[in-house]
Amino acid sequence: MKDQKIQVALLGLGTVGAGVYKVLESQKKEMLPKLGTEVELKKILVRNLQKAAAKVNDPSVLTDDWQEIITDGEIDIVIEVMGGMEPARTYILEALNAGKNVITANKDLIAVDGKSLMDAAKSAGKDFFFEASVAGGIPIIRPLKQSLEANHISEIVGIVNGTTNFILTKMTEENMEFADALKLAQDLGYAEADPTADVEGLDAARKLAILASIAFHSRVSFEDVYAEGISRITSRDIQYADEMGCRIKLLAVARNTEDGIEVNVHPMLINRRHPLASVNDSFNAVFVKGDAVGETMFYGRGAGELPTASAIVGDLFDTVKNIRYQCTGHVNCTCYKTLPIKKAGDKVSRYYIRLQVEDRLGVLAAVASVLGNNNVSIEQCIQKHKAGDLAEIVVITETVLERNFNDSLQILKTMSMIKEVSAVTRVY
Amino acid sequence: MKDQKIQVALLGLGTVGAGVYKVLESQKKEMLPKLGTEVELKKILVRNLQKAAAKVNDPSVLTDDWQEIITDGEIDIVIEVMGGMEPARTYILEALNAGKNVITANKDLIAVDGKSLMDAAKSAGKDFFFEASVAGGIPIIRPLKQSLEANHISEIVGIVNGTTNFILTKMTEENMEFADALKLAQDLGYAEADPTADVEGLDAARKLAILASIAFHSRVSFEDVYAEGISRITSRDIQYADEMGCRIKLLAVARNTEDGIEVNVHPMLINRRHPLASVNDSFNAVFVKGDAVGETMFYGRGAGELPTASAIVGDLFDTVKNIRYQCTGHVNCTCYKTLPIKKAGDKVSRYYIRLQVEDRLGVLAAVASVLGNNNVSIEQCIQKHKAGDLAEIVVITETVLERNFNDSLQILKTMSMIKEVSAVTRVY
Repeated sequence: MKDQKIQVALLGLGTVGAGVYKVLESQKKEMLPKLGTEVELKKILVRNLQKAAAKVNDPSVLTDDWQEIITDGEIDIVIEVMGGMEPARTYILEALNAGKNVITANKDLIAVDGKSLMDAAKSAGKDFFFEASVAGGIPIIRPLKQSLEANHISEIVGIVNGTTNFILTKMTEENMEFADALKLAQDLGYAEADPTADVEGLDAARKLAILASIAFHSRVSFEDVYAEGISRITSRDIQYADEMGCRIKLLAVARNTEDGIEVNVHPMLINRRHPLASVNDSFNAVFVKGDAVGETMFYGRGAGELPTASAIVGDLFDTVKNIRYQCTGHVNCTCYKTLPIKKAGDKVSRYYIRLQVEDRLGVLAAVASVLGNNNVSIEQCIQKHKAGDLAEIVVITETVLERNFNDSLQILKTMSMIKEVSAVTRVY
Repeated sequence: MKDQKIQVALLGLGTVGAGVYKVLESQKKEMLPKLGTEVELKKILVRNLQKAAAKVNDPSVLTDDWQEIITDGEIDIVIEVMGGMEPARTYILEALNAGKNVITANKDLIAVDGKSLMDAAKSAGKDFFFEASVAGGIPIIRPLKQSLEANHISEIVGIVNGTTNFILTKMTEENMEFADALKLAQDLGYAEADPTADVEGLDAARKLAILASIAFHSRVSFEDVYAEGISRITSRDIQYADEMGCRIKLLAVARNTEDGIEVNVHPMLINRRHPLASVNDSFNAVFVKGDAVGETMFYGRGAGELPTASAIVGDLFDTVKNIRYQCTGHVNCTCYKTLPIKKAGDKVSRYYIRLQVEDRLGVLAAVASVLGNNNVSIEQCIQKHKAGDLAEIVVITETVLERNFNDSLQILKTMSMIKEVSAVTRVY
């Protein structure tokens, strides 16, 4: 058992890095009884030494030279919170190859390059943990890899992007339109100046790739995930959803079907009684279905300085214990299967569509017949008269083949009595 | 690294034991890639060999002789799912002392005697895991001990008894009275013939003792927990709660305050928007507040054959990996503090009271003045006329000292204008 102090380097001192620093400070007195050893933050890699000095008690821990860290044989653990692909990827590989354990929050990297990093950790016999890369502070990766390991997991459904969940909550509760809710999220610091990665579902797609890989024991990459954002959702659709007993959420859905893995991120109507429907504001949640456990859900803060640091320092404490007991390097890549990824046309879904149509007899029948001819059954339907000669038709379909639905949609778009297909959204 | 097959004994083949058997069968093909070794269920201890034979593929694994298991040097892991205090306690201690790792679902035992069992495991250098003892299939003990370990946890609030949650859900959604909902629960097999342990909050109190001990790093025993059941809740109170924006739930609440630990199980009004308020039917959930992670919640099935087995076999797989890597015995008792348990009179709470009073001027003022004189502030109040000369007053107080509230209650009970104190319930 290793009793001497364990030394750590932190790469990056932005929002998350500062959070890690604070949590380590607040846990200082607890470390010896919790871990049986002390943990020292020996070096922090920053770009601007002067700017960073204000954030730490003792600026002598700061360095802008990666070589100072990688060549320091006393440093056992490197925490990477710089984000982005490079130089994060190179630093992580160099650290593992130098015999250091690595903890990261870098979803971009893991979703694309997770396998090569885990392989490097395995060869080195070192820990490589990334709990913070999905759903921030919510424990989800460790529960999937350990607590729920006796399950065949058939489905994961996540609300894993706080920005879009905040926007949809405001649109639902305060009848705001998308652009106004986005502006509010930006003003409050929940959304970035360029909100594309959040709003178009790319951030959620990265997290879903990581979750699906772990849950199904088969590699799923970012490029395998079909991603659609929320920018076309209107408060009108949210109101119709409400009339039909549903909320609209950006859901990241992974399914392990007999014909392969389905991984999709898109806005979906979800029944108000489902536990995910009441996950509001910037909260995240991950819903997991397993053959033994049944339905289970993990809920909490998916981002932010301290919640993300909670996950990172949790990983750190685990690594410290593993170093003490000489057990590092035992949680490796768990993708021992190679399952196919399902193609879009083979997928099935329920759909919500909203149409502007001529306000006259026979239109609803014509719409129903186009759907029926393409094997698309209707589950619920609302028709409302509008000002002028227009009516609005809203349909929720039964579960249908995506291919069949798209065929019927193409036909609807060519019909003169249909003035506009105003919305097409999937239903969970 | 140990590559040979790992052999396991199961003590008990009731509902949970049969679940463990089924999950092991369904995971048979996955074990080698997941664990790097095979796991064999070598012996199952049962009382009635003949009755048990129908439940297994090969009855030769059955035995009614504990000595056959404890003296078998090839058995590395014992899973105890007999329940109750004895002989479970003796068997677990004997197994640990004989150098076997132990997994149990036995909350009765852990809540009373957890420390001595964990000490025995530590001396033996063996794993002793009990994830299934709280909230069935929901991963909560491991997340508290690992993922959330970088937090100072200030509060745990659980819906940890499925029977009472089912009863309260039926009372809420179908306006049933307690006795009818209990009868339905018994008919459906959710409640036992003698429902005392569930209905009076004792089962929840045991689980809360275990959760609080882990979360606050200080031993809390079953006898430290104040427990009150749901048998006095009426559908009328549930309706008033609804008018005031609340649900009524049996909440197990543990708080780590500056003056000591508070551990209480009682029915409580909880705001409809709180994530726990929409945990319905026999589902369980545990809500955790930490200084870094913020608010987080774990939701799922708290009981049942397969959910409970999911947690047990999850523990088993962990132990198997620890045996292979010679890392058993590292997750020990985490109670390194000795915090006082707060006395009832020192506690604070919000209260809901419902009174039958004379229907005349001045009564509400008199009630308000008794409360006010005892430093009990009113937050919400409803007065309704009833048939005859009676009116009903419902009050929700602000947060007050339990002692002060009880003093005012004693006075209210002596007042001739107050015919009955019909309900007193705490508010979360």
